[in-house]
Amino acid sequence: MSAEKVGFIGLGIMGEPMASNLIKKGHELVVHNRSRGPVDKLAAEGAQPAETSREVAELTDVVITMLPDSPQVEEVFEGDSGLLAGASEGTLHIDMSTISPLVTKKLAERASDLGVRTLDAPVSGGQPAAVSGELSIMVGGADEDFARAEPLFGAMGTAVHVGGTGTGQVVKACNQIIVAVVIEAVSEALVLGSKAGVDPAKVIEALSGGLAGTKVMEAKRSNFLDHDFEPGFRIELHHKDLGIALATAREAGVALPLTAVVDQMLQTLQVKGRGGLDHSALLTLIEEAAEHQIGGTAKASS
Amino acid sequence: MSAEKVGFIGLGIMGEPMASNLIKKGHELVVHNRSRGPVDKLAAEGAQPAETSREVAELTDVVITMLPDSPQVEEVFEGDSGLLAGASEGTLHIDMSTISPLVTKKLAERASDLGVRTLDAPVSGGQPAAVSGELSIMVGGADEDFARAEPLFGAMGTAVHVGGTGTGQVVKACNQIIVAVVIEAVSEALVLGSKAGVDPAKVIEALSGGLAGTKVMEAKRSNFLDHDFEPGFRIELHHKDLGIALATAREAGVALPLTAVVDQMLQTLQVKGRGGLDHSALLTLIEEAAEHQIGGTAKASS
Repeated sequence: MSAEKVGFIGLGIMGEPMASNLIKKGHELVVHNRSRGPVDKLAAEGAQPAETSREVAELTDVVITMLPDSPQVEEVFEGDSGLLAGASEGTLHIDMSTISPLVTKKLAERASDLGVRTLDAPVSGGQPAAVSGELSIMVGGADEDFARAEPLFGAMGTAVHVGGTGTGQVVKACNQIIVAVVIEAVSEALVLGSKAGVDPAKVIEALSGGLAGTKVMEAKRSNFLDHDFEPGFRIELHHKDLGIALATAREAGVALPLTAVVDQMLQTLQVKGRGGLDHSALLTLIEEAAEHQIGGTAKASS
Repeated sequence: MSAEKVGFIGLGIMGEPMASNLIKKGHELVVHNRSRGPVDKLAAEGAQPAETSREVAELTDVVITMLPDSPQVEEVFEGDSGLLAGASEGTLHIDMSTISPLVTKKLAERASDLGVRTLDAPVSGGQPAAVSGELSIMVGGADEDFARAEPLFGAMGTAVHVGGTGTGQVVKACNQIIVAVVIEAVSEALVLGSKAGVDPAKVIEALSGGLAGTKVMEAKRSNFLDHDFEPGFRIELHHKDLGIALATAREAGVALPLTAVVDQMLQTLQVKGRGGLDHSALLTLIEEAAEHQIGGTAKASS
């Protein structure tokens, strides 16, 4: 398995360290990216550069894509210079981008017609986890394909096989729902507490050990308390992801009232020019509604 | 400190085990309750029964109250047979009920006029933690009063001093906001996941380790997956508590959009006759909106 040649397309702030970790674990890599910088960097680590997605697929057994959204994945997948044009029967395409489960299913059907195998394997944990090789990877697809991909996943993080094609994307959507709603819940609590006279650090201290305990409160503590909204995970990306969640829910016939409200709040923050801030900046909207800032020096707030 | 005589008023499913733990730790107790059953039980453990709240206060140095809501606390506090009538200068009243911070402040002012000291010290953790002596106790009031009460808190759980009078109630409101919103966030994720084809147990497994990780997902796992809505903490009480949070926010001039939505959902569940179910039954409202039940045997659902 680990002797398979691996292609990696999309070497952004997530993809580049993920590819680098694969090289470090001894995998032979062929890489492609729209801009040349990260290709050269990975070539210096031993990767073989390729000019097109098609060429990546021609030279490898397993092709990983890590791209911003559905249109980019479709673009890399389709067409004369796309990965499907270069793939052979038995090629495994692992899409680690966060995209619509509906698009994932459509692409999987096209791949299946040509004998190309697919896994959807979106990740959580952000750039720090991409660098340290500690991503959480949510995988949809067939058992044998998951088994084939496991050594690769192991180089990048920890994978959980959650079901058939598209379910990795569905679970990622669930993840994004919970994270966004929890950030907003903590924001409401901290602003109320603060405006009613309680030091927000005390609120976090008092609530962390109980049923109100959340990873968000722990991991984003200094973002909330110091008004440090350097991303992290950007509001505009989270807004994109809730768009996927809400479209998936619409298709499935599920009402998501809190998700819909937070999605509108992320939209509002984008209009206010804060799409590039960390998603913990949801706090600023509640602060503004209360004309009250809980602390910090507004480092990245506009 | 521990030689002080302690009164305990309100021996319900929370108060009775809390009083019992104080006796076990060697504190001398005088107890009063509207119904006689728990008084007799605690008398058998060594407590001295009293006929009125006034008598409790007359016989003790520190009086703890543990009552359902603001009106009950006001009733026990005021009037000829109330605790304030029996209190002396230096008596410490610790109210461990969850009530409005506005009422807390009003009562503290009345007490202060007579030289009676006060702490607000609501708890979280529910009956199991009350029995095991592992409550989280959020305490508002003066430093010296907190220090005086610490040996008592230690018999019932772990106390955090969060600020001046009323701040314990404010932090409890923050706790109730986060818990309710997180339950609803997890509900939306589980129903979407399930209806889009993912086993909800897999959703929980995949998300627990990451930024979406919450104590609610851990502690309420079997409630969600098995449709087991035996309380636990009842919807009608959580609805009462969000009413306090929203009234406090209105007074403080803070907008709480998600809290307001979940409050409406708890109201809806009460109208549907589910006020007596565990708050994790918020799940059922999202299931009904989706015409889809995620699993279990609907043990306590109506």
